[in-house]
Amino acid sequence: MNDRLQEVLDAVERQASGYSDDLAEFVRIASVSTAREHREDIDAAAAWTAARLRRAGVPEVQVLDTAGHPVVVGRWQVAADLPTVVIYGHYDVQPAEPLELWHSPAFEPEVRDGKLYGRGASDDKGGVMVAIQAVEAWASVTGALPVNVTFLIEGEEEVGSPNLPGFLADHAELLAGDLAISADGGIYGVGVPSLTVSSRGLGGCEIVVRGAAADLHSGTYGGPVPNPLAGLARILASFHDDDGRVAVPGFYDGVEEPTEAQRRALAATPTDDTALLAELGLKAWSGEVGYSALELRTLRPTLEINGMGGGYQGPGIKTVLPSEARAKVTCRLVIGQDPDRIVEAIAAQVKALTPTGMSVEVTPLPGKGKAYAMPLDHPVLVPAARAMEAVFGLKPFPVWQGGTVPVAESFMSQLGMWCLYFAFGEPDNGLHAPNEFVRVDMLRKGTLATVRLLGELAQTPLND
Amino acid sequence: MNDRLQEVLDAVERQASGYSDDLAEFVRIASVSTAREHREDIDAAAAWTAARLRRAGVPEVQVLDTAGHPVVVGRWQVAADLPTVVIYGHYDVQPAEPLELWHSPAFEPEVRDGKLYGRGASDDKGGVMVAIQAVEAWASVTGALPVNVTFLIEGEEEVGSPNLPGFLADHAELLAGDLAISADGGIYGVGVPSLTVSSRGLGGCEIVVRGAAADLHSGTYGGPVPNPLAGLARILASFHDDDGRVAVPGFYDGVEEPTEAQRRALAATPTDDTALLAELGLKAWSGEVGYSALELRTLRPTLEINGMGGGYQGPGIKTVLPSEARAKVTCRLVIGQDPDRIVEAIAAQVKALTPTGMSVEVTPLPGKGKAYAMPLDHPVLVPAARAMEAVFGLKPFPVWQGGTVPVAESFMSQLGMWCLYFAFGEPDNGLHAPNEFVRVDMLRKGTLATVRLLGELAQTPLND
Repeated sequence: MNDRLQEVLDAVERQASGYSDDLAEFVRIASVSTAREHREDIDAAAAWTAARLRRAGVPEVQVLDTAGHPVVVGRWQVAADLPTVVIYGHYDVQPAEPLELWHSPAFEPEVRDGKLYGRGASDDKGGVMVAIQAVEAWASVTGALPVNVTFLIEGEEEVGSPNLPGFLADHAELLAGDLAISADGGIYGVGVPSLTVSSRGLGGCEIVVRGAAADLHSGTYGGPVPNPLAGLARILASFHDDDGRVAVPGFYDGVEEPTEAQRRALAATPTDDTALLAELGLKAWSGEVGYSALELRTLRPTLEINGMGGGYQGPGIKTVLPSEARAKVTCRLVIGQDPDRIVEAIAAQVKALTPTGMSVEVTPLPGKGKAYAMPLDHPVLVPAARAMEAVFGLKPFPVWQGGTVPVAESFMSQLGMWCLYFAFGEPDNGLHAPNEFVRVDMLRKGTLATVRLLGELAQTPLND
Repeated sequence: MNDRLQEVLDAVERQASGYSDDLAEFVRIASVSTAREHREDIDAAAAWTAARLRRAGVPEVQVLDTAGHPVVVGRWQVAADLPTVVIYGHYDVQPAEPLELWHSPAFEPEVRDGKLYGRGASDDKGGVMVAIQAVEAWASVTGALPVNVTFLIEGEEEVGSPNLPGFLADHAELLAGDLAISADGGIYGVGVPSLTVSSRGLGGCEIVVRGAAADLHSGTYGGPVPNPLAGLARILASFHDDDGRVAVPGFYDGVEEPTEAQRRALAATPTDDTALLAELGLKAWSGEVGYSALELRTLRPTLEINGMGGGYQGPGIKTVLPSEARAKVTCRLVIGQDPDRIVEAIAAQVKALTPTGMSVEVTPLPGKGKAYAMPLDHPVLVPAARAMEAVFGLKPFPVWQGGTVPVAESFMSQLGMWCLYFAFGEPDNGLHAPNEFVRVDMLRKGTLATVRLLGELAQTPLND
């Protein structure tokens, strides 16, 4: 079938003139997943996605209910002996607020200077369209696809995909495959391709320290009455040693040192640490001694205090001896770490350090997830890199992502598939911000690269 | 003149039937010092106080302006060879809110079960009236007083007396005397007399720790970016050692250990530590090792964190790496400690501990004041104790107050007078709370005790 690749690429060039009108129609549906009043838009966006899949030639398309928003599943089983890829994306979008900062209305897409502006234009309606367009191009030329494809387009990504793990479990057979491809994600720079190979996991907890039953006057009672703010400060200060390492016993159990290949690849990333320091308004990096800033941001686990508070935080002075202090702590995790066990280790330390006269409570926070990492020598990275290079004229480099994307880990742990990030969001696209856009030409380029990737996947050993 | 003491005490018994109507008239003036809309009431209360002093027989009464609320000064120079006492009190009151919790309106005084209810009935309109009534009783019988008396009744006590130090400086000659008596204060228990001999000082600062210029995503940047919450926790944790002592170099410079006499007197105070622990909802005391809870509350200096905060404090999770963290710290100080030098010592420690990549800022908080302590063997305590015992039938014991009352220290440092607390607020009077009251009979008892004290002061060596 790959002998027809050039014809398919030519078809993309012809069809590309319609891509931005198509995406504009999709963007016009205000499928904001955080807001109940957009529930009709959510259903409309799911229906629109299903119709678009059918129009592309996908034969089995279903809109399946969950406890939350529906999931669109589109299957094209071309042949039993071909590998099956599951393409993931989402039709829901972030809220558009603050509306007054948009130069054109968020849900009235407009093309200016080759950029299509609108909420979701890049994240992830543009991403979903690229994948559908690639399938459509193959179908339009060959009447079939080089591999079996299952689309899995959800509507709750922007609210943390609460129902996706359950959906994967309930539909394991329907969604079975050899490789997942995430059409949600991005590349390193504007026009600079990269392949995301990992994301860090997440686990955290809230810590509450309590002293007296009520706030007290620090004059009348100060001295023998335990101060929860001081107690909390001592607990939080115990979480790192002087070298910036996390000082919670067991935290690094199972964590492997970055390999030489990883460190070399990371060092080759065109990141300008000096420029970044200036941009962030910092004089110096801190953190674990012995690692570069980029290694600390991607390959090493962290423990961060995200918030803390207690007592009087208003203007001026109030001589209160507060009854309670709170902190929220989350860890970015790497392969080998389990969110639950990390939270248990933190809780054990908090309990061991509970100061005299105080009580503590540790409650896990929602949103936990394990780290995900694809080996640098995974065979699918070869055609993926080749497809990107052919389109962008640059070899993509691997990117280890510092944030947490539970979906990739879910595909691996629940369905036994590696997940390849093959997506084209650019860092200047304004994701989750006003004036989100996608470059119209990126819709074409992304589609060309995806066409190439699908073409090669039939020949790639996907299960090692 | 003391040969006529019994006549004066008899006069009090006769005049006492009018005390509560008189106080009710005073309480009806809503002289709330925190609220601008009560400015007319403030002026009315000052005028009422001045008129009442004149009616009592005080010959030189003036209402003197300050940058804030006026001060009422009433002088009765009986004879040049008699000692002069300056009686301090205040005509302003706390706000009455929350109004819905009052059983009768705060400014419509009502007597129920022998208690006169209303805002200021105890603090300090009742206290002011007791002192005026004592002078009136002496005057009504003898046409004079046993000592020279200067009343100094201010209108800003409930807002921290911001203009009092300036007033004392500007009117040092007018206010010159041998002893100050505070008619603002209280006794240890309901009907249990005591003499306050000290109050702790106060000094504090706000600490701000800053990292990146803006809040950052903990996934993208977590690792090498300094976390101000962690930095602040380390700084705050450095302020105490494992034995609960303040671990700021220089903090204890000049601080003397409690004397055996102080410790014995304090141990004899009828404080039930076990009951207090239960009342406060605590399982154990903490604080500096080697001192009793009461010693820690009164004789020892403290460093307390009154408030801290930064990052995300709402419900659920937000994986933010905050740009800033803040804490407010205040110290209760004892004799030998200077608020400014204490704040400097804290600032030096904060600066020394500033973590890599962060900046810190330390700003002194308003409301500073030095400690005040009258020696346990001060000669005025003898007649003061005798006067209380004669009225209450119990020997008063000394009370070291944990809170801060700058006025006593101002009398000493600005006018060279010791300040004797001779006041009758009871702990159940609901100061600063709804349903404040004074026991009508306490107006009589307080007046009787004050009559006795004034009678004895002519024979007491007031300047040692």
